[in-house]
Amino acid sequence: MNGAQALIRTLVGAGVEVCFSNPGTSEMHFVAALDAVPDMRGVLCLFEGTATGAADGYGRMTGRPAAVLLHLGPGLGNGLANLHNARRAGSPLVLVVGDHATWHKRFDAPLESDIDALAGSVSGWTRRSLRSADVAADAAEAVAAASAGQVATLILPADVSWTDGAQPAPAIPARPPSPVPGEVLGDVAKALRGGEPALILLGGTAVRRPALEAASRIAAATGARLLAETFPARMERGAGLPAVARLAYLAEMAAPQLAGTRHLILAGARAPVSFFAYPGRPSSLVPDDCQVHVLAAGGDDAPGALIALADLVAADAAPTGAPAQRPAIPDGALTAESASAVIGALLPERAIVSDESNTSGIGLGPATGGAPPHDWLTLTGGAIGQGLPLAAGAAIASPDRPVIALESDGSAMYTISALWTHAREGLDVTTVIFSNRSYAILAMELDRVGAAGTAGDAARSLLDLSRPTLDFTALAAGMGVPATRARTTAKFAAQFEQALAEPGPHLIEAILP
Amino acid sequence: MNGAQALIRTLVGAGVEVCFSNPGTSEMHFVAALDAVPDMRGVLCLFEGTATGAADGYGRMTGRPAAVLLHLGPGLGNGLANLHNARRAGSPLVLVVGDHATWHKRFDAPLESDIDALAGSVSGWTRRSLRSADVAADAAEAVAAASAGQVATLILPADVSWTDGAQPAPAIPARPPSPVPGEVLGDVAKALRGGEPALILLGGTAVRRPALEAASRIAAATGARLLAETFPARMERGAGLPAVARLAYLAEMAAPQLAGTRHLILAGARAPVSFFAYPGRPSSLVPDDCQVHVLAAGGDDAPGALIALADLVAADAAPTGAPAQRPAIPDGALTAESASAVIGALLPERAIVSDESNTSGIGLGPATGGAPPHDWLTLTGGAIGQGLPLAAGAAIASPDRPVIALESDGSAMYTISALWTHAREGLDVTTVIFSNRSYAILAMELDRVGAAGTAGDAARSLLDLSRPTLDFTALAAGMGVPATRARTTAKFAAQFEQALAEPGPHLIEAILP
Repeated sequence: MNGAQALIRTLVGAGVEVCFSNPGTSEMHFVAALDAVPDMRGVLCLFEGTATGAADGYGRMTGRPAAVLLHLGPGLGNGLANLHNARRAGSPLVLVVGDHATWHKRFDAPLESDIDALAGSVSGWTRRSLRSADVAADAAEAVAAASAGQVATLILPADVSWTDGAQPAPAIPARPPSPVPGEVLGDVAKALRGGEPALILLGGTAVRRPALEAASRIAAATGARLLAETFPARMERGAGLPAVARLAYLAEMAAPQLAGTRHLILAGARAPVSFFAYPGRPSSLVPDDCQVHVLAAGGDDAPGALIALADLVAADAAPTGAPAQRPAIPDGALTAESASAVIGALLPERAIVSDESNTSGIGLGPATGGAPPHDWLTLTGGAIGQGLPLAAGAAIASPDRPVIALESDGSAMYTISALWTHAREGLDVTTVIFSNRSYAILAMELDRVGAAGTAGDAARSLLDLSRPTLDFTALAAGMGVPATRARTTAKFAAQFEQALAEPGPHLIEAILP
Repeated sequence: MNGAQALIRTLVGAGVEVCFSNPGTSEMHFVAALDAVPDMRGVLCLFEGTATGAADGYGRMTGRPAAVLLHLGPGLGNGLANLHNARRAGSPLVLVVGDHATWHKRFDAPLESDIDALAGSVSGWTRRSLRSADVAADAAEAVAAASAGQVATLILPADVSWTDGAQPAPAIPARPPSPVPGEVLGDVAKALRGGEPALILLGGTAVRRPALEAASRIAAATGARLLAETFPARMERGAGLPAVARLAYLAEMAAPQLAGTRHLILAGARAPVSFFAYPGRPSSLVPDDCQVHVLAAGGDDAPGALIALADLVAADAAPTGAPAQRPAIPDGALTAESASAVIGALLPERAIVSDESNTSGIGLGPATGGAPPHDWLTLTGGAIGQGLPLAAGAAIASPDRPVIALESDGSAMYTISALWTHAREGLDVTTVIFSNRSYAILAMELDRVGAAGTAGDAARSLLDLSRPTLDFTALAAGMGVPATRARTTAKFAAQFEQALAEPGPHLIEAILP
C-alpha cells in the first residue's frame, strides 16, 4: 500500500477516527485513501481555521486526538489561530500538513514556504516524514505525542504519500500524566493546615467532576478558597457539582478575588497573569507576600493529586454541590443580562457550551451555575474565531448531546463558514449570535490601556460593526442553517427553546443594545 | 508624542496613506493615534486575511506600500496566506504586528506566541522595535525596505506604542531597481541574433505597457517568441497593447508552449517550474537543450533592460498591439465559456480584474484580450482566498476605476467577510462568483496525480460543495452588498452590465453546470 493508506490505517489503529479536512493538490492521495479506510471519517471544512478549531473541540470532549489535514504553508497559516487556542487548551490534536514532493522543494514553486517554522510555533511535536516506509511509524509517534495533550504535526510530502511499500504501524501507548510525588502533597498539606489564607487555583483537567469534588472536600476541611483559571478548556459545572468561580479576565476584578491569599496552590493551572499589559500595572496577579505552591503542573496528574490531597487533609469531608436553580425569564427588550437569564433558564442537561460571548457573556456564569450539569468550553488562547468551529468538533465528538455556541458578532466573522459544516454534518448545534454591532471588548480596552482620551472618530470607527450591519440570519441561510432574529427576551426564549427541541443546526441572532 | 503617533506620522511622511486594520488590545494606542494623523486612512477588515490581501492589491496598483495592522501571533497567522501571495507578487507592504509590552513577554500570557517565526516566513525585512525613541526610525526603514517590493514587518510592543518621547523620522529613499549591466544585454542580444529559437518569458514589472512594447519590438525584429509568467501580479493587456499569452498552469499544456526553445530569456520572470509535483514528471519546465539567460531577476530593472535590449536589436521595429475586438454574447444556459464571453463583451475601459476564477476562468484570456485596456491581477502564490480582499485594496488604490472580482465559490469562502469591507467603504467592486458547487480544480488534480483510481465517495465528498449549496446572494446581502443570481447567459449579461453601471459594490452569483 502507499504511504497515505498506511498513514490513515495507523491513525485509525491508534484510535483517531475523524479527520477535519481542507485539502489541496498535494493531499490528493491522502484524500483518495479515505475510501480504503472507512473507519476514518472525513469532515470537510471550507476554511482551515474551522478544521483546527473543530479538532480542538473534539479533543476537549473525548480526550483523544482528531486528525486535521491541511494544505502546505498557507493552509497551515489559516489554521494557526485555532491551533494556538488548542495549544493553550492542552488539546490532543494530530496535524497532517501536506507538502510538495521531496524533489520538488528546491524549485521554490509558488506555494513553497517555510512550513516547519509555522508548525514549530504551535506544536509540541513536529516531524517531517521522509520516506513512505517510515510514515506509519511517524504517525504512531504523532498520536502518542498528541495524546499527552499537545499539537503533534506530521509534515507529509506528496511523494511520501503516493509511494508504495508502506505498512501500518502499531499504536504506541500514550504516556499517562505523571503522578505527583508524596513530598509535594505533604508540603501542600502543611500549607493548608497552617491556618494562613490559602487558595487553590484549578485548571486543565482539574475542573472536571472528580477533581472539583476533591477540591471541594479540601475547601470544606481546611477553609481554603477555590477558583478556576480564567479560560478553562472544558469545565464541568451545574447543579450538584461544586460551584467554583473563574478568575476574572480583568486584572482589576481578579485582584480582589486573590487578595489576602498567603498560599496559592496551583492544581493544573498556571500562576495568574494579566491577559494584557497595561501602563503602570504589574503583569503578575500573585499578591505580595503570597507563596506559590505547584501541586500539579502541565503533564502532572492534577485530579489524582487533588484526590490524594483530599484523602490527606479532608478524609471525612464531603463535597458541596451547587443547588439546582434557574433564573426566571424576564420581560422586555433583549439585553445581555436577559439573554443570559434565558440561557440559564433553558440550558438542557448534558449541554456542551462553546463560549465565545466575550463582553456579552459576563452574566452567563451566575445565570447557568444551577442549571443541570453541563460542560463549558472557553477561549483558552484568546485568538477569536474559535466558537463556531469548536462547537462543530464538540458535536461530532458527542453526537448524543446538545451543543450551544454562544458567539459574539465580531468573533463569529473570523470563521463564519463553520456554519456550513454545521449544516453539512447535520450537527445539533444551536448558535446564538450576540449582536451588539461593535468590537465591544476593544472599546472597553481602549479605555483600560489609557488610549481613550486621544481616540476620536477615526479610532472608534475601527471598533464599530454597524456600517453596514451584519445580518446573521442571511449569513446562516446562505450556508444552509435555519435562522431567526430576536429583539425581545420573550422572543429569544421561544426561539432558543424551539432550536433546542429540533435536531440539527440553528442560529439565533440576538440583537443587543 | 508617543511611539504610535510618531510611527504613524513617519509612515504618512514616507507616503503610506492607508492602513488596513484588524486590531486588538495591544494595538489600541496605534488605533487612538489615527485621530491625530488624519492623513492616514484606517480601513477596518473583519478578518486579517482581508487586510493583508487588500494591502497586496493596493501595492500592486500603486507601487507604494499600504500598512497593515494586526494583533499578535494569531492575527498574523490569519494574515499569512495572503502575505504569502503578496510575497510572491513582489508587492510593497508594511506590516505592523502589535505585541505584548516588553516586560509582559516573559509571563507567557495566553496570547503569547512566536511572532518572529511567523513573520520571518513571509517577510523580506523584519524588525522588533525595542524603544519608543527608535520606532519612527524603524518605521522609515520598513517603508524603504517594503518599497523594494517585499513585505516589511515591524513588530510593535504595546509599551513602545504608548510611551512618550518619540519623534517622527524622515523618509528614507527607496532603493531603485538595479540597472542591468551592458554585458548581460550584450549576451542576450547575441543569443537573439544567433538565429536559434528564442523565447522571452516576461514577469514582474515586465508585463506592463512599456516593457511589453519593448518586448514586442524585439519579437518583431528577431523572431523571438513572447510569453508571460503563469501568475503575474499585475498585467496590462487589451486592445492596443501587445498580446502576450501566459504560460499555462498545467505542465502538460505549458510543455508545448515552451517546446523547441533553445534560448529562454527571463525578464522579471523565474525559470518555469511545475506548480505541483506529479509522479514520474519533472519539476523543471525548461526544455532539454535550452539555455537559460537571466536578463533581469527580482530587484533588477526588467522594463529598462527590455527597452535597452530593444534599442540594441530592434531599433527600427514597432510594437504590435492587439486589435480591438469583443466576443458576441451567446444565448442559452450560463456556462464558464459563455460567462467569459459576457465579461469580454462588457469589460469596461481601465477595469482592474482580480482573477481568482480558477477552472471557471480558462476561457477568460482569449475572451478579454481585445477588450479596452485593463489590468489583470492573478493568484501569484496559489493561496486561495485572495480575490475579494485584493479587489478591495485595488479599489481603494484606484477609486476612479471599475474593479471586477472574478471569484470561484470555494475560494471565496476563505475570506468572504471582505464583502463587508466592500460595502463599508462603498467600493466600486463587481464580484462575480463562479458557482459550480465543487472544488473543481481538486477533482481535476485528483486525476492528474494518479489518485482518481482509488478515490470513491469518501474522497469525492471532500471536493464537493453541494450539500448544502452555498447561497452567495444571501451571504452578500448579510454583509450589505446587493446581489443577484444568473442561470442564463442573457440574465448574467444584463446583471453584469447593470452592476458596472451603478456605483458601489455588487455581487452576481453565476450558477455554472
